[in-house]
Amino acid sequence: MRIAGVMTGTSFDAIDVAICDIQPEGDRDAVSLFAFKSFPFQERTQELLRHVVHADMSLEQLSDLAFVLAREYAEAIRDIEREHSTSVEAVAIHGQTIWHHPPYSTWQIGSGPALSALLARTVVSDFRSADVALGGQGAPLVPIFDHATLCKPSTCRVALNIGGMANLTLLPPACSIETLQAFDTGPGNVWIDAGTRLTFGKHYDKDGAIARAGRIIAPMLAEMQSMPYFSVQPPKSTGRELFTLQEAQRLITKYSQPSSPLEDVVSTMTELTAWSIADHIHRYAPVTKEIIISGGGSQNSFLLERLEAQLIENQMPTKLVVHEHWQEKEAMAFAYLGFLTLSGRPGNVPSVTGATKMAVLGSVSSQHVL
Amino acid sequence: MRIAGVMTGTSFDAIDVAICDIQPEGDRDAVSLFAFKSFPFQERTQELLRHVVHADMSLEQLSDLAFVLAREYAEAIRDIEREHSTSVEAVAIHGQTIWHHPPYSTWQIGSGPALSALLARTVVSDFRSADVALGGQGAPLVPIFDHATLCKPSTCRVALNIGGMANLTLLPPACSIETLQAFDTGPGNVWIDAGTRLTFGKHYDKDGAIARAGRIIAPMLAEMQSMPYFSVQPPKSTGRELFTLQEAQRLITKYSQPSSPLEDVVSTMTELTAWSIADHIHRYAPVTKEIIISGGGSQNSFLLERLEAQLIENQMPTKLVVHEHWQEKEAMAFAYLGFLTLSGRPGNVPSVTGATKMAVLGSVSSQHVL
Repeated sequence: MRIAGVMTGTSFDAIDVAICDIQPEGDRDAVSLFAFKSFPFQERTQELLRHVVHADMSLEQLSDLAFVLAREYAEAIRDIEREHSTSVEAVAIHGQTIWHHPPYSTWQIGSGPALSALLARTVVSDFRSADVALGGQGAPLVPIFDHATLCKPSTCRVALNIGGMANLTLLPPACSIETLQAFDTGPGNVWIDAGTRLTFGKHYDKDGAIARAGRIIAPMLAEMQSMPYFSVQPPKSTGRELFTLQEAQRLITKYSQPSSPLEDVVSTMTELTAWSIADHIHRYAPVTKEIIISGGGSQNSFLLERLEAQLIENQMPTKLVVHEHWQEKEAMAFAYLGFLTLSGRPGNVPSVTGATKMAVLGSVSSQHVL
Repeated sequence: MRIAGVMTGTSFDAIDVAICDIQPEGDRDAVSLFAFKSFPFQERTQELLRHVVHADMSLEQLSDLAFVLAREYAEAIRDIEREHSTSVEAVAIHGQTIWHHPPYSTWQIGSGPALSALLARTVVSDFRSADVALGGQGAPLVPIFDHATLCKPSTCRVALNIGGMANLTLLPPACSIETLQAFDTGPGNVWIDAGTRLTFGKHYDKDGAIARAGRIIAPMLAEMQSMPYFSVQPPKSTGRELFTLQEAQRLITKYSQPSSPLEDVVSTMTELTAWSIADHIHRYAPVTKEIIISGGGSQNSFLLERLEAQLIENQMPTKLVVHEHWQEKEAMAFAYLGFLTLSGRPGNVPSVTGATKMAVLGSVSSQHVL
């Protein structure tokens, strides 16, 4: 099945489309990336999206937003299909998360039926609601994709995604879905970015160049390492509500000396990130041989060096591998989740989300006979 | 297929569940009602729903409402299944309309994926979005059900629903879906109810008893008959935004004499309703032999008498028949629309809604292999 996965993250900047070819092979599924493209949102849509998280919108604006997004997704699919002279069988959309509050509700906006009508194609949407209705966190949903694509018969691996937050999927040799473990280790890029913005006014520390030029502020690192989240047992998840810009500002003001270089702040944030990832891997997957890294943080070579150094300190000579599709992986995962739904197979992993049972996720709008 | 249709109308009072047995028979579909029950909304849900139309709600409240409704629907389905010792194959939910503004968007809230997970059953939801995305009004959707269940090979019929508004589906002998006509004739119960409330303080004129005791105020009737909506060519649709309580109040104040009986107001409103229905049938379906009447207005015997009298004035000796499922019909229609979607068949009628083409409506969440 050739299926497009459409992911729009919390930064509201772009629609990522990954066209994948997926087919069952024996007891696993083979997923290969056929094409990928990132489409910047229309200026007006981006404004609408920024508005929605800062202020309550009217019913009219929210209702229209679901259709505006469907129209933008339709344009993106048409564009990538034209560019690659192909036609997908189905489209799986994550939608834009505008509210996520398990166990009460979750809300990924973007109309599946409207998109299906516009494209005359099968659309799968609304992947998180079923898991939340079953008492789960509705997240993370990527682990089942990690399991399908990264699990090896005899190698202990970890899939690490370094986005705003950092999360792990533990992949012991030939692991079963039923016992899969996945959780957030804490900050990914969020505090490195915060430190860079608050000191150098830049959006992010490109390739870790700033951090590489600084030194670790030991008492600042120690205070951050003592945050309770790091010692909580998994499954656990966190977000920007715990690792805020305000808290980063407070720590920087407290520990940064006027005489000391500003780079030190970024070094210390990078060290915290590397330490928290390595510490969780050491505690929960000590025999890991390979870490497959995706997300924007995989492009920060200094962060990866520090992660490797931290693992070696823990007697873990682990190989770090940047995922060949480090940028495309999340959109690919939603193409795969769409494939599972269309195959009548569950997509959530109760040991990971906390749901009471597995469920076929999402909702299918189809212009074909089912 | 045994399928439950779940309808919640704009009065926010109850969840109507109609369990239907549906199967294709030759070139038509046979639909029979197996069970029906109306479940009053929980007090808290009703409050939420009333709130949503009067004031904008927060993202949290709206997100939660979609799940609260799913939980109430699940309870209703479990209850009716228990009572009748049956199990439905699928559930089709209309959801609660909280915004409807074609061609921009439409919004029926109530989570299909959550309901599917809670019941471990196939759920079809969100029936109006595809039609609106294709430039249609997203309404009415009942005509395809009227066509399937009421069309006769050699009799010219009209399906008349008298709810808040009154609408017609014209069913010439052996009519095809492609040329189907359906439209709103104007007020159904809305102004009879308004007149009754403003004069007698009652919710509605039971069986037309008040109107039966009054006389028509001729100049008031004439002013109402001159409203432009009545002379507009179909397809057309209207709502409470045109036939408001305020306008009813204005007319009553203008024409009601202190010396004349209050019943006259209700008589005149009833006459307007009967006249506008009869006039449209006379203009657009003059050879109609039978009118099959559903909705609350079908229980107002005085209204039906006046309708018959108006038709006779137009030389139409038409037979009026109250639909055997006058109350259950709309929920049954959504069971049928769900059946169409699950069969991969379109549910909208472009000649009725104005959409550019037919579409398989809605979105399917399934805990079975599709």
